[in-house]
Amino acid sequence: MSRVFRLIISCPDQVGIVAKVAGFIASEGGSIVEANHHTDAINQWFFMRHEILASSLKSDLEGFRQKFAPIAEQFDMDWQVPDSGQPKKIALFASKESHCLADFLYRWHEEDLPGEVACVIANHDDLRRMVEWYDRPFHHIPVTPDTKLDAFAQSQALIEQYDIDVIVLARYMQILPPKMCADYAGKVINIHHSFLPSFVGAKPYHQAYERGVKLIGATCHYVTEALDAGPIIEQDVIRVSHSHSIDDMRRLGRDVEKTVLSRGLRYHLEDRILIHGNKTVVFAN
Amino acid sequence: MSRVFRLIISCPDQVGIVAKVAGFIASEGGSIVEANHHTDAINQWFFMRHEILASSLKSDLEGFRQKFAPIAEQFDMDWQVPDSGQPKKIALFASKESHCLADFLYRWHEEDLPGEVACVIANHDDLRRMVEWYDRPFHHIPVTPDTKLDAFAQSQALIEQYDIDVIVLARYMQILPPKMCADYAGKVINIHHSFLPSFVGAKPYHQAYERGVKLIGATCHYVTEALDAGPIIEQDVIRVSHSHSIDDMRRLGRDVEKTVLSRGLRYHLEDRILIHGNKTVVFAN
Amino acid sequence: MSRVFRLIISCPDQVGIVAKVAGFIASEGGSIVEANHHTDAINQWFFMRHEILASSLKSDLEGFRQKFAPIAEQFDMDWQVPDSGQPKKIALFASKESHCLADFLYRWHEEDLPGEVACVIANHDDLRRMVEWYDRPFHHIPVTPDTKLDAFAQSQALIEQYDIDVIVLARYMQILPPKMCADYAGKVINIHHSFLPSFVGAKPYHQAYERGVKLIGATCHYVTEALDAGPIIEQDVIRVSHSHSIDDMRRLGRDVEKTVLSRGLRYHLEDRILIHGNKTVVFAN
Amino acid sequence: MSRVFRLIISCPDQVGIVAKVAGFIASEGGSIVEANHHTDAINQWFFMRHEILASSLKSDLEGFRQKFAPIAEQFDMDWQVPDSGQPKKIALFASKESHCLADFLYRWHEEDLPGEVACVIANHDDLRRMVEWYDRPFHHIPVTPDTKLDAFAQSQALIEQYDIDVIVLARYMQILPPKMCADYAGKVINIHHSFLPSFVGAKPYHQAYERGVKLIGATCHYVTEALDAGPIIEQDVIRVSHSHSIDDMRRLGRDVEKTVLSRGLRYHLEDRILIHGNKTVVFAN
Repeated sequence: MSRVFRLIISCPDQVGIVAKVAGFIASEGGSIVEANHHTDAINQWFFMRHEILASSLKSDLEGFRQKFAPIAEQFDMDWQVPDSGQPKKIALFASKESHCLADFLYRWHEEDLPGEVACVIANHDDLRRMVEWYDRPFHHIPVTPDTKLDAFAQSQALIEQYDIDVIVLARYMQILPPKMCADYAGKVINIHHSFLPSFVGAKPYHQAYERGVKLIGATCHYVTEALDAGPIIEQDVIRVSHSHSIDDMRRLGRDVEKTVLSRGLRYHLEDRILIHGNKTVVFAN
Repeated sequence: MSRVFRLIISCPDQVGIVAKVAGFIASEGGSIVEANHHTDAINQWFFMRHEILASSLKSDLEGFRQKFAPIAEQFDMDWQVPDSGQPKKIALFASKESHCLADFLYRWHEEDLPGEVACVIANHDDLRRMVEWYDRPFHHIPVTPDTKLDAFAQSQALIEQYDIDVIVLARYMQILPPKMCADYAGKVINIHHSFLPSFVGAKPYHQAYERGVKLIGATCHYVTEALDAGPIIEQDVIRVSHSHSIDDMRRLGRDVEKTVLSRGLRYHLEDRILIHGNKTVVFAN
Repeated sequence: MSRVFRLIISCPDQVGIVAKVAGFIASEGGSIVEANHHTDAINQWFFMRHEILASSLKSDLEGFRQKFAPIAEQFDMDWQVPDSGQPKKIALFASKESHCLADFLYRWHEEDLPGEVACVIANHDDLRRMVEWYDRPFHHIPVTPDTKLDAFAQSQALIEQYDIDVIVLARYMQILPPKMCADYAGKVINIHHSFLPSFVGAKPYHQAYERGVKLIGATCHYVTEALDAGPIIEQDVIRVSHSHSIDDMRRLGRDVEKTVLSRGLRYHLEDRILIHGNKTVVFAN
Repeated sequence: MSRVFRLIISCPDQVGIVAKVAGFIASEGGSIVEANHHTDAINQWFFMRHEILASSLKSDLEGFRQKFAPIAEQFDMDWQVPDSGQPKKIALFASKESHCLADFLYRWHEEDLPGEVACVIANHDDLRRMVEWYDRPFHHIPVTPDTKLDAFAQSQALIEQYDIDVIVLARYMQILPPKMCADYAGKVINIHHSFLPSFVGAKPYHQAYERGVKLIGATCHYVTEALDAGPIIEQDVIRVSHSHSIDDMRRLGRDVEKTVLSRGLRYHLEDRILIHGNKTVVFAN
């Protein structure tokens, strides 16, 4: 993949934004690899994402940003220009269940996901050997009701130390403290093992079994203080029937969970997601 | 399709049921077209469905039932033997939205659904012309807060008059009185325009839009007194994104609704559904 | 829906196209409702579609086109500006099978599809009553080996007479003469009842049954002289198993066929499809 | 999972088979966990699978088989009684691409798949480290045009030595010699990276890209002498668009490939597949 700058913009809608931005990119010699727009007609809000070939630009990243800043100010933009040459640093939070972690590490190892696994933090020691095979640092930080605050303080220290860009809760099964949700708003991604908003909270497959649904699912979302209620990134489902036990649902669900998480995380790592209110705009590819 | 008797059984599980039933069918010369079993290991309950070629049997329907009755008694069976030669009589309840009704009438007209549309009952007169093109009786029974009980009494009188086997709420948008739910338990099928248990009640597409889900769905279920909480028969979903308005969701959803309803109803008309508690066993084909 | 002009462009890729086009739209006061770009990196070709609110523009359609023409020339564009206020005129070609025709007429009647059904041409008279209920002209033009050329000449005369924009083969089951394929290139849409390129030609469900596939499908494509080999617009599949007969496949397939056709046709009617070589760019919504 | 015997039967159809088999199972005290029947009406052939709780039976496996043999003879049955307590021994054949192998080893390690990975045979040495982490024997047997016959003789010797029950070609990319296909008929499972019968042979994603299909897929099938033409076990697809390059298709396809292979292989390991002619009956759960 050639190096690209990603110009990510959201702002109040008005005539002339596209022309201004496109004019700027052209004046910088920018070769556009991919472009996506969305207008939220109800909220009169505009969203835009460009991938621009870095080698085609007259300026380096810093220069590009400086020159663009006045346009951003003029249109009151929320904006950023992430650089594909600086892949995001990821902290994976895990517990005992390995499927999402294993899937993620494998994809990272195969260079299938555009990010850098910086460390794994787990409240149990079970997955150490797997993580260490991939030569990634593994930190075992137990969480008990008594030590919870301290444990999260330790985790947060590691996040700062590794200069983490995104935290992935890979079936971590612990609820983050409100302050941590706030500190890393839009930077913590969770996989919930139901088709939200159905079956919030604990044991969703049990709930699904009891209700007798004919499809089960998984939801990848940003974590907010409200449990399983943050902005949804991606969802998928799989068919079940009366013949499936709760264990069967768990088994079938695992595949959906890891697929949905890896898809959602790819969108985040490629800066394809713009959060607005409690919803996402996902410029998927 | 050749005429078949469908032997439908549910009972407490024990060794020897299959042998007894299969032995009986063989002793009657019955050629089995399709057979399905399910054991609910948690509740120790057994479910079974056979399609038997009518022409292969020594007895007629009445004889078959009489000879089978002692076996049913021995195993404490809940059982029935519907005859594909006596298709179920259907009352379609509709309002103003035509898509489920139109889809259903078309399938019936093309002999694609094994039932008999006996009448249409609607609380608005809008769909009369469509129904009459299909040469089916159309009854306009308005429902207002004041006349509700009377309106349902009228409807119920028609149901008795037409000797109806199954009531289909094809986007009827009215809540049936509790007594009617009880009187026709397991005989009223509704299509709800969400992936239940998400978005119960009114305006599910609005709710879905607000929550920012990435899939919308529809659910076909038996009606019980608890709103949108009866046994689920069939569900399906379709992908949506930030680019879809509520109107787009309605449009996309309509196709899912009618697909799910026609699938669920086919299962009911072919006696493929066994209700147990608040769940269904669906021997789908 | 508000009236929009759709600016549809494809041309050799180069830096500055987007800026030029966006600058032009902005200078005309154009409010962009939807915008899509695609760069084919292998063929160095660029594709672009804008929906612009007609009421926001300084010029009428003719004026807009005249002012845009020099830009189009400069970048060697293949371009058009269809107007949503002038819905395309559709000729439906049918035979005996009604499901695609019925689905289409119903959607048109409900104002669910943005086109104008101008007439139905059928080689059998069976579907006349259905078409006439919708108050559309029905032309019965039988096709036999001997009369084939004459029949298509008659059809073509009707197409001219009704000033048709797009021909839809709704399970027409006849192969168009090469000259007609050429005369209406990019304007004839067919639904083939298999997942192309599998099972080209006659009796695809028989072929699928014989091969023992576990999914069957349908394909909506532009008609070219090469049988079932034109640019693909849309495809979908449905799961089957050993328990499904050829008749079951036909029944399940009908639902896929009409869904795929209506989706593909919607894309065409909304000018979302750009043909390049034997492939399509579909800016789906 | 409790230990079960699986009674797998196929034979010419006639009245009384089910009664005879069910009577036998009941007389042995057998508690039936799962039962499936299928009648192929065209070929007048009958297929049946029972899972019977081993602990409920009066006889051990050998005794059960001996007592059942006369019934099998009477009805001219093709039959077997695999024992879930003796999981099948698997040889995985791999090349350089790791996704199917890694997925399979992971599932085996998590006890998610009911088989025993006996060894991995690969024509390249790249995946040795991964296999050895799972503590499985890795045999590197290079294949060149000159050494091909000798290489397969070596492989076959290993298959005998490990007493292999099923060979899985996990993106092995080599064509087995006809004799080997014949020797292990119904025991070699391949994953092909297209939706067969589309895109047989080499580079299916290139073929799919060229044809401009809107869905890509994968097919799990038994290997026969005819390339990619053996009995199909399982298939699935994923949506693609004009925006996906061949590399994107490869990436998306990998997930479909491993899902389809693991599903198909599970069916085989649980004795859910009955081959008849060039087609399969799959009693899926």
